Amino acid sequence: MTRFAPLPEPPYYAVIFTAQRREGDQGYGAMADRMVELAAGQPGYIGIESTRDADGLGITVSYWQDEAALKAWKQVSEHLLAQKLGKTRWYEHYTLRVAKVERAYDGPEGR
Amino acid sequence: MTRFAPLPEPPYYAVIFTAQRREGDQGYGAMADRMVELAAGQPGYIGIESTRDADGLGITVSYWQDEAALKAWKQVSEHLLAQKLGKTRWYEHYTLRVAKVERAYDGPEGR
Repeated sequence: MTRFAPLPEPPYYAVIFTAQRREGDQGYGAMADRMVELAAGQPGYIGIESTRDADGLGITVSYWQDEAALKAWKQVSEHLLAQKLGKTRWYEHYTLRVAKVERAYDGPEGR
Repeated sequence: MTRFAPLPEPPYYAVIFTAQRREGDQGYGAMADRMVELAAGQPGYIGIESTRDADGLGITVSYWQDEAALKAWKQVSEHLLAQKLGKTRWYEHYTLRVAKVERAYDGPEGR
């Protein structure tokens, strides 16, 4: 299974979430899997890319067709719970940036 | 040292580079360090966030004040060499997206 998101024709939106985890799982793994599953079923969802190193710094970028889609996702009730637990339990620090993708390509050789 | 980029007032640009490494270092580590150092000295550079997991999937997001800054960085000669080696030697696959950051925040508690 590819860990790359699709590359539709821009414009579309990216939500760049960079986060430093605290130590210990504390239910994070199961919730993260559930959020990926839940996001994939939302209207306007394009895809997600996510990785985290051994020191607990992760970057997750989710892609959405338009602002309405990402705003709706932010308000999904299970996701609201995950956001709350992120603040209180899982993350030492995080940044979230909403950005409009203007151009995109892949490589090598457009694979 | 923080691994988070600064959070200036939007708008500014993000370059989202997601890449699957091939096996073996092949000079990658030294070049990656040099590129971080070199980028930091470029006009319009804001910051960089980067992480990679044990399976070799990495996401690097660099932030730039405007399009002119990121276009100039793309053409820096040492960076052109790194791009070439990325295609021929280091990366199994990659995607690159240029996106305009519209809003951003951090947490918990704005730390």
